[in-house]
Amino acid sequence: MRLELKKFYSALAPRLVVLVSSVDGDGNVNAAPFSFVMPVSMDPPLLALASAHERDTLANIRETGEFVVNLPSEEILKELWVCAKNFPRGIDEIERSGLTEIPSERVNPPGIEECVAWFECKLVNEFEAGDHVILLGEVLAARVKGDIIDERGNLDISSVNIPLHLGGSEFAVPERVVSVK
Amino acid sequence: MRLELKKFYSALAPRLVVLVSSVDGDGNVNAAPFSFVMPVSMDPPLLALASAHERDTLANIRETGEFVVNLPSEEILKELWVCAKNFPRGIDEIERSGLTEIPSERVNPPGIEECVAWFECKLVNEFEAGDHVILLGEVLAARVKGDIIDERGNLDISSVNIPLHLGGSEFAVPERVVSVK
Repeated sequence: MRLELKKFYSALAPRLVVLVSSVDGDGNVNAAPFSFVMPVSMDPPLLALASAHERDTLANIRETGEFVVNLPSEEILKELWVCAKNFPRGIDEIERSGLTEIPSERVNPPGIEECVAWFECKLVNEFEAGDHVILLGEVLAARVKGDIIDERGNLDISSVNIPLHLGGSEFAVPERVVSVK
Repeated sequence: MRLELKKFYSALAPRLVVLVSSVDGDGNVNAAPFSFVMPVSMDPPLLALASAHERDTLANIRETGEFVVNLPSEEILKELWVCAKNFPRGIDEIERSGLTEIPSERVNPPGIEECVAWFECKLVNEFEAGDHVILLGEVLAARVKGDIIDERGNLDISSVNIPLHLGGSEFAVPERVVSVK
């Protein structure tokens, strides 16, 4: 079946979804979900995030050069959905959604306490990419909740439910692990 | 728990894995798995792929400017694993793994028949990103197998098992869907 080209991404799924927290020049906190995100480099540790041009998160990151990538679990999907609403710039979606801010170690934007992994980032570059901008962030600090990483160093999905975006309000949650030999 | 910075990506998981097929200037076919991939733009339709510097796929894409992003299902994980082996450049991993080449519509590299979605891409830009290179591909054609897209336009994970990389030889397969309101 042929896909309409503008909808190709619907089949490049399901995709990790992260909550990106940022602050503007006055210190107002913002948080918004993104599903176009990937690691890109180990040394230095870099991740990439694609943002539409008009988003408050992009404006904040350009203004202050910092952001936190928070990995949510299924338990806070409703709160994530509140953060996705289009509040005016300067409105703190973390507070609005009932989530809790925690101080970061290396950057000014706070993390979100109810998430399960936190990547504190410094913007190191940005690239034009059609109707989005690719933000390249250097990871200055990386922390995870409790025991979500197993003894092999992999994410343990038996201890955490990671929602993956399918489209619209639908998410997939992986619970079965297969090992290939 | 603090993560070693070089290992931050282990918690930015599970990640989609794709098989990227390409050809060199002499037409020799190559296929290799990548898990650092994301859509970045709808109009124009663009996706981004992060490649380590020394990979044959990167050399081929630079040489010919084309590639196909093939989305595998769980059923061909073993074959995907064969494609991950470090064969000399010029060796056709699709043949070696027992998979089947299918002609593409808009680019020279073939697709992989046993996959469930195919994105034919033209390289439009590349960006340096630490120990990887971000390849920006314009999607010239996008096709999916049968009925894997539901009536809402989302991937239907009840009809296809998508493996997501956790690390090493471990993959997660999502089977449960949640909807947030």
